[in-house]
Amino acid sequence: MHKEELIQTSIRIDSFIHRTPVMKSELLNKIAGAEIWFKCENFQKMGAFKMRGAANAMLHLSEKQKQKGVVTHSSGNFAQAVALSAKNMGIKAYIVMPENAPQVKVNAVRAYGGEVIQCVSTQEAREATADQIVKEKGATFLHPYNDIHVVYGQGTAAKELLEDHPDLNCLLAPIGGGGLISGTALSARYLGKDCETYGAEPFGADDAYQSFTTGVLTANKTVNTIADGLRTNLGKITFPIIQKYVKNIIRVEEEEIIIAMKLIWERMKIIIEPSCAVPFAAVLKEKKIFQNKKIGIILSGGNVDLAKLPF
Amino acid sequence: MHKEELIQTSIRIDSFIHRTPVMKSELLNKIAGAEIWFKCENFQKMGAFKMRGAANAMLHLSEKQKQKGVVTHSSGNFAQAVALSAKNMGIKAYIVMPENAPQVKVNAVRAYGGEVIQCVSTQEAREATADQIVKEKGATFLHPYNDIHVVYGQGTAAKELLEDHPDLNCLLAPIGGGGLISGTALSARYLGKDCETYGAEPFGADDAYQSFTTGVLTANKTVNTIADGLRTNLGKITFPIIQKYVKNIIRVEEEEIIIAMKLIWERMKIIIEPSCAVPFAAVLKEKKIFQNKKIGIILSGGNVDLAKLPF
Repeated sequence: MHKEELIQTSIRIDSFIHRTPVMKSELLNKIAGAEIWFKCENFQKMGAFKMRGAANAMLHLSEKQKQKGVVTHSSGNFAQAVALSAKNMGIKAYIVMPENAPQVKVNAVRAYGGEVIQCVSTQEAREATADQIVKEKGATFLHPYNDIHVVYGQGTAAKELLEDHPDLNCLLAPIGGGGLISGTALSARYLGKDCETYGAEPFGADDAYQSFTTGVLTANKTVNTIADGLRTNLGKITFPIIQKYVKNIIRVEEEEIIIAMKLIWERMKIIIEPSCAVPFAAVLKEKKIFQNKKIGIILSGGNVDLAKLPF
Repeated sequence: MHKEELIQTSIRIDSFIHRTPVMKSELLNKIAGAEIWFKCENFQKMGAFKMRGAANAMLHLSEKQKQKGVVTHSSGNFAQAVALSAKNMGIKAYIVMPENAPQVKVNAVRAYGGEVIQCVSTQEAREATADQIVKEKGATFLHPYNDIHVVYGQGTAAKELLEDHPDLNCLLAPIGGGGLISGTALSARYLGKDCETYGAEPFGADDAYQSFTTGVLTANKTVNTIADGLRTNLGKITFPIIQKYVKNIIRVEEEEIIIAMKLIWERMKIIIEPSCAVPFAAVLKEKKIFQNKKIGIILSGGNVDLAKLPF
């Protein structure tokens, strides 16, 4: 059933996304002692894999729902993904953003035709504002990760990677809310050949590691990481998928993230977000696990503020 | 004869270079009002098109010459290209570098196995030091651009681009010493279909424009540009090719280069050198010339100091 869903999702969203390229670097392979294929979702439309899940979720809406529009709250890539997908499908998008969201992100959502509604910068205010729009406008709320259609959508990145390189021994993806890692793990299990999935997250936002090792869904008490896409907590839909299909979760230090990010920028000449660098940092950290393996890494996105680089 | 040379060069250097990908951006097309295909030589081995010319020049050496090694003076990409090509061919490489060359560049040449000889930072000292190595070691001097084998090598980037997109109306490349633009223009003329070539250079190093418009080979009196790869002067071999095969040369301001560079970084998520951004800046500047055209741009390289970005 998961396999069929992944295949159908891939067909469904095909015209709304790019099939992104896969890149490799001889030098990074040498440094890692492994063969790594990078799936470049930083080249995805609007610059991140989030397009896949957003498009799939929206394509499951009824005609009536489509007429009334969609709403989400996000200051990150999901906001842009919803705005752009909605535009491409002729659907109205309401995007709730905290009032301290960077102007560049607000502008990006508006450029994609999204209606931005600003609110106080607390989780409660964001949820309340979104709820209000659901009530007033009849819009459908889209969750950035805790939605099985979003999970299948995100899983199509790994599906494409495995089509290009069917013999990968393992896949790695970063863990924020768990949408990408869940979809990746399902693709590895049902479309790969004995392909294992590892999650990677910063020590400074290790709710997935804590949840995974204790067996109890646990939220971050504090969050302290440059990997801004990974500060969110797992959801009730993504956690059980991770428990069942992810082999292990590797945590990395902030400095390791920055080193990995800089290596990819300097050696591969591509722009990735800090969150993107976390799985490669994990490969460099746990060399014993990955030695001589064929590894696929999902580079999740490339939306980074060039004025605030960590190096 | 040029056509046959380009074809033979392409075969000759095949195993020493990457066939680089071609990228496009819907958003940049919209901004430019044209369709642009970017040939990504920033993804070339050692990060720049210079690999092509260096490999071709070295493959023309006799066995005796190969045994005695090669020498060049450069603080830029050609130094790395010669060092890496030499390593791959089992040839000794002596690289003369000014004593104020950035340590990162010295390290890169050494990492590729090149022997670095440092000298005072004047053109005379560099030439004298290289001459001395030619005399003492019997090494063969390789010129970074004023060499027809180098020109044909650089022209293979445009050849590949035209194979992928045979119907391009024009090609653009930046002009430093003229190796890349000469090779590009020959490929456009002999392998394209009515495909015209435009050169692009900064106002702050416009020797090619001055030479082209006056008909007299003219060196830069002063040089003032962020595009560090374009500060050199045309040579006696490249200038006549440019006169004969280049349609026009467009000059751009420093600010226009930085804007174009930032657009490519932010929208395409790839890392390019300032020199690389000059042709795209020219397309944005001369919209009338390029309106609705199918354009190929050679992105020349991606070796940039991340600690010294202009934005």
